[in-house]
Amino acid sequence: MSTKQNSAAQTDRPQVVVDDFVPLNKTEDGQYLHEKGQHFVIHAEAEASDKSHARSATLHTAHGTIETPVFMAVGTRATVKAVTNEDLKEAGCQILLGNTYHLHLRPGEKTIKAMGGLHKFMNWDKPILTDSGGFQVFSLSALRKLTEKGVEFRSHLDGSKYFISPEKSMEIQMDLGSDIIMAFDECLPYPAEREPTIKSADLTMRWLQRSKEAMTRRQSMLFGIVQGGLEKDLRLKSLEQICSTDLPGFALGGLSVGEPIEMMHALVKEVAHELPKNKPRYLMGVGTPLDLILAVDAGIDMFDCVNPTRTARNGTLFTWQGRVSIKRTEYREDASPLDPECDCYTCRNYTKAYLRHLFTSGEMLSAHLNSIHNLHFHFKVMERAREAIRAGRWAEYRDFCLSRWR
Amino acid sequence: MSTKQNSAAQTDRPQVVVDDFVPLNKTEDGQYLHEKGQHFVIHAEAEASDKSHARSATLHTAHGTIETPVFMAVGTRATVKAVTNEDLKEAGCQILLGNTYHLHLRPGEKTIKAMGGLHKFMNWDKPILTDSGGFQVFSLSALRKLTEKGVEFRSHLDGSKYFISPEKSMEIQMDLGSDIIMAFDECLPYPAEREPTIKSADLTMRWLQRSKEAMTRRQSMLFGIVQGGLEKDLRLKSLEQICSTDLPGFALGGLSVGEPIEMMHALVKEVAHELPKNKPRYLMGVGTPLDLILAVDAGIDMFDCVNPTRTARNGTLFTWQGRVSIKRTEYREDASPLDPECDCYTCRNYTKAYLRHLFTSGEMLSAHLNSIHNLHFHFKVMERAREAIRAGRWAEYRDFCLSRWR
Repeated sequence: MSTKQNSAAQTDRPQVVVDDFVPLNKTEDGQYLHEKGQHFVIHAEAEASDKSHARSATLHTAHGTIETPVFMAVGTRATVKAVTNEDLKEAGCQILLGNTYHLHLRPGEKTIKAMGGLHKFMNWDKPILTDSGGFQVFSLSALRKLTEKGVEFRSHLDGSKYFISPEKSMEIQMDLGSDIIMAFDECLPYPAEREPTIKSADLTMRWLQRSKEAMTRRQSMLFGIVQGGLEKDLRLKSLEQICSTDLPGFALGGLSVGEPIEMMHALVKEVAHELPKNKPRYLMGVGTPLDLILAVDAGIDMFDCVNPTRTARNGTLFTWQGRVSIKRTEYREDASPLDPECDCYTCRNYTKAYLRHLFTSGEMLSAHLNSIHNLHFHFKVMERAREAIRAGRWAEYRDFCLSRWR
Repeated sequence: MSTKQNSAAQTDRPQVVVDDFVPLNKTEDGQYLHEKGQHFVIHAEAEASDKSHARSATLHTAHGTIETPVFMAVGTRATVKAVTNEDLKEAGCQILLGNTYHLHLRPGEKTIKAMGGLHKFMNWDKPILTDSGGFQVFSLSALRKLTEKGVEFRSHLDGSKYFISPEKSMEIQMDLGSDIIMAFDECLPYPAEREPTIKSADLTMRWLQRSKEAMTRRQSMLFGIVQGGLEKDLRLKSLEQICSTDLPGFALGGLSVGEPIEMMHALVKEVAHELPKNKPRYLMGVGTPLDLILAVDAGIDMFDCVNPTRTARNGTLFTWQGRVSIKRTEYREDASPLDPECDCYTCRNYTKAYLRHLFTSGEMLSAHLNSIHNLHFHFKVMERAREAIRAGRWAEYRDFCLSRWR
């Protein structure tokens, strides 16, 4: 066959045009729901007897509504690894997270903007949240140089030099066209001393002000990020600073960075409910189904984590009965589905014996089917949480999950 | 989460039970269509003016009918790499090929038999053809020792010792429950001298007789394999030997083993139409869309090849305009679909810019979307061939393809 090319777009097939989309949260007076503080509608809260801060709400974004509590699938480089957007929707995905750091390096936000924005580029018409790039700059890149102005670093891909500041992070995220934009923050590794933690939280606060000034895209929402490490007083100090800024949502950052998991659970339990009640509360980078249940109980509304897809590729699968390591010899001739209580594509169609065969053979279909299951499972855990909270049965559902997984 | 397991199959969801299937080609008198020679019904042949041996037919198997000419997707290890069975069906796949050598080594045919056969194990309810293992024994394994009895070899996976004979190959394929079983043959590499080629073809003939005696599964069909190398007289001698055996179908083997492609095209053109007219003719291990068109023209009905999926993973995509190397910089901001004339899932939903990004980023979704397209393309080339032959327009379609791809 020749290598001659077709001239572009000689087709009359209609293309998905996401950029023509009329934002769903724009009101008749030309304002946006989040500008009026009406973007987050709480439907139900845990009963007083539940001793819980759990609540269930609707979050309005320019690409549709999200029912909370919600788990967001991580689409690092404009794709959730090993699954299609159709798979995601069938599994129950409401919103994707894109990584500013990765997309800035490749293919670059200007390319994505030229392609009509991240929604159109990856053909995803539901909401997208992008992180600020801060976490990856501090965890992945080499030769960082931190100043008041921002961070200079070298790409982990090819060593070339980059500079990200609050202003640059906002520019990138606006070019991507994200529905929810995260403020640029400094994310300290664990463990960190008190003094650097205080200085870092103060810098994050100043960067938040600069992020807010630079974020001019009205249909996007800017969320602030609370830092302050793992000591309660410092964390609450950062929370007070950050949340004094008028923003449509707030996140807890700098957790799930290597600290013992019980320490994270304890801190979230103590501080989550101190975040503004009438705004969505987002716990960044968390977690397992157990982590989700405990954090919802503490008052968190939103989560993201690579956990379901990464563990899936490693052959660890979450079920209502506990974790399953699919490579185990006992599954060699096991004709039962992975999880008899699950109705995902994988559990509807395949046996443990087949999933084991795919994994031990190193077949790509293994990552695909395992990822579909683990994502579906995380979404289902949250769907049942929403149902339970709205039906006044939160404590019952929470205790059921804890009894099975703890 | 605990690692405690659910006891198997505590579900009342109906499982797909392929082994309860009543073979579609069983007739009322208890015979099978292929036993009566009625399994292959030719609907149309190329016009005399076309100077062609192309024909279009229906092949009846125990798992349904196949319209020919047909391209079979290769599911080496009980999976077509990087795609699901649902993807395959949507792309137009009628029949899969499974590899006896690979499945014998892992997970082993006894495990697959215990799981209800290959159809049920991989949840594929359409026809399956399995090769004999011969090709892989001679191309992949180490330390082969060939005798009249069979071949002793060491696994390419772990070096452990195996022995495959015609009888063993039949036993494996019957355990797998294949609809079409290939006779065990010796497959010589290219180049081969006349003398070894003659001896090898004679051995393949004796092995065919033993294969036939050992193949006792009535709902399966045994196909013979013509060898004889690349010289026409030897090939025709093998063809005469092999085709003197009463079998429901015949294949040309030992081609596409490294010889210049023009040599393969020339030999197929000379010998394909010498295969029995009233039986399906299968060209093993071929090929590109161009190869398919030339071989259909020569009178071939069936094909299999890893070409569409392997090239897809390497970023080479087939289109009606020719080959596309998706990594090229010119596609960086190309918002057009890969092939404007294609209606596959990939072309309906994604741009060249996005496919390039996935490939250059090494994302698994790249292999998935590219494989869907290339498979769909091969199936479509054959679907249009069937339509053209049945509508008396074969020469027109053939010349259209050749003008674009040669």
